[in-house]
Amino acid sequence: MKYIDRLHSAIDRCQSSAMVGLDPRLDHLPQPFRDRAAGSANDAALAITEYHRALIDILATEIAVIKPQSAFFERLGPAGFAALADACEYAKERGMLVLMDAKRGDIGSTSNAYAETFLGGGYKNAFPQCDALTVNPFLGIDACEPFLEYAKRNNAGLYFLVKTSNPGAVSFQNHGSPTLSEVIAAQVDKWSRQDMGDRWWSNIGAVVGATRADELGGFRKLMPHTPLLLPGFGFQGGTAEGLDGAFDQNGHGAVVNSSRGILWAHERKDLDHMSCWEDRTAFAVIEMKQLLAGAK
Amino acid sequence: MKYIDRLHSAIDRCQSSAMVGLDPRLDHLPQPFRDRAAGSANDAALAITEYHRALIDILATEIAVIKPQSAFFERLGPAGFAALADACEYAKERGMLVLMDAKRGDIGSTSNAYAETFLGGGYKNAFPQCDALTVNPFLGIDACEPFLEYAKRNNAGLYFLVKTSNPGAVSFQNHGSPTLSEVIAAQVDKWSRQDMGDRWWSNIGAVVGATRADELGGFRKLMPHTPLLLPGFGFQGGTAEGLDGAFDQNGHGAVVNSSRGILWAHERKDLDHMSCWEDRTAFAVIEMKQLLAGAK
Repeated sequence: MKYIDRLHSAIDRCQSSAMVGLDPRLDHLPQPFRDRAAGSANDAALAITEYHRALIDILATEIAVIKPQSAFFERLGPAGFAALADACEYAKERGMLVLMDAKRGDIGSTSNAYAETFLGGGYKNAFPQCDALTVNPFLGIDACEPFLEYAKRNNAGLYFLVKTSNPGAVSFQNHGSPTLSEVIAAQVDKWSRQDMGDRWWSNIGAVVGATRADELGGFRKLMPHTPLLLPGFGFQGGTAEGLDGAFDQNGHGAVVNSSRGILWAHERKDLDHMSCWEDRTAFAVIEMKQLLAGAK
Repeated sequence: MKYIDRLHSAIDRCQSSAMVGLDPRLDHLPQPFRDRAAGSANDAALAITEYHRALIDILATEIAVIKPQSAFFERLGPAGFAALADACEYAKERGMLVLMDAKRGDIGSTSNAYAETFLGGGYKNAFPQCDALTVNPFLGIDACEPFLEYAKRNNAGLYFLVKTSNPGAVSFQNHGSPTLSEVIAAQVDKWSRQDMGDRWWSNIGAVVGATRADELGGFRKLMPHTPLLLPGFGFQGGTAEGLDGAFDQNGHGAVVNSSRGILWAHERKDLDHMSCWEDRTAFAVIEMKQLLAGAK
């Protein structure tokens, strides 16, 4: 089954388009894991491996898809890359989809190697096959093609960066008229139409910063079949308001990410009455789902 | 000592701005390593580890800097990431500089994690500290700042993608008037002036595809202090002609990369009279240095 159809069936099951990002910052791990992470980089990698397994156990029945952020694993070296693989593997075992947020992009043969790594199981299953990958399109159309081919061959999805959620996104992405983001959106629309799922939506998606709800409608018009990844829900200043233009009447068409809003929930003073990090995390998950449901 | 000054002293010692890229494609390894790589991904990772050590032994006295291409290591999974770390570590031991070609770029806190990984030794020395890193600037000025800070703090260098060597680079990089590449070049010029080496050249560099020698002069004017990384010498269609605008009278101002021209030299029919891969590789290195020297 194609990525987008797997995604929608998982969203239907969880009754939510909420996604949780895994950005393991060691100083924000729940206490038992933070203590274990305090030794060497290998200790830290083992601690986040255990933490992610426990976290995925909490998320699995509630959340359709997780989004590991590769950078926070890579900084722990080879053991960190192993922890990344383990989180992907375990989430898949628990029935979740894995959207790898690695924002790769390079010239053809190198893009091909990145696509193989994350969408093709790596060389001889060296890495778990992810369901989808974020791609940086800056290098150009030919540089994106290996990702498109891998996605098609392996029923995987892609999310091309069209407009990112950081304040400085304007510096280059707003260049020209039409803007660079609009030009890329038009290209992503073409790619989307060449790899459609069962119904309205494509396997080929786009990242559009949810902190810019005003622009969402414009991008949706440029890319009517393109599922969106809306990052930045919560800590980056995105809110659930104004997101409804991204979705169809079935609640399909976008996934909305929260990372710190879930991962740091155990630090919330207003949840002090809950004794363990698991309860606080589970509460924040339900809260996010309700906020999102209210916005649509 | 700052990166650019270390680089220039290594270039002076080797009397060449030639750089060799490590893009380990398993089906193009010299025979003994290819056989050893044929098993599992871990076998392949061990084989390329040994191969790179042998290759670095050949290069160390002739070539100032190597450029590992992260993608070809990542596809071998965690063991591949360990092989990448080993190649960096060994090249540093042998006195070479390491320019990591990972083309990372993300929003602030994530860029920070990537910068720490490759320019800061990772978390508790989880990864060897590289001398320089390629960065994709698409996400914007604020997304590039963590890399600039890490570079300054650790005397490291950066090479921002300004114009890449693939034919499709035109699709987005030529957008607008001035083009996106020119806008980025003007920004890189500003950054360059804020982190200068001892003399004319900055620690902050740019990638400009050497297949576009006609454009080199224009970019050099926009970025007079910015050292260039000229990829694509050899197999990608770049030639040594027309590169002289990139260099000053001391032969400083750019490094010129060849990957397949060196790594696949052992397959050259015209070198059949040399019995071992080491000799063929050494020959191709000298040949590249001579071609480059003739062009300046």
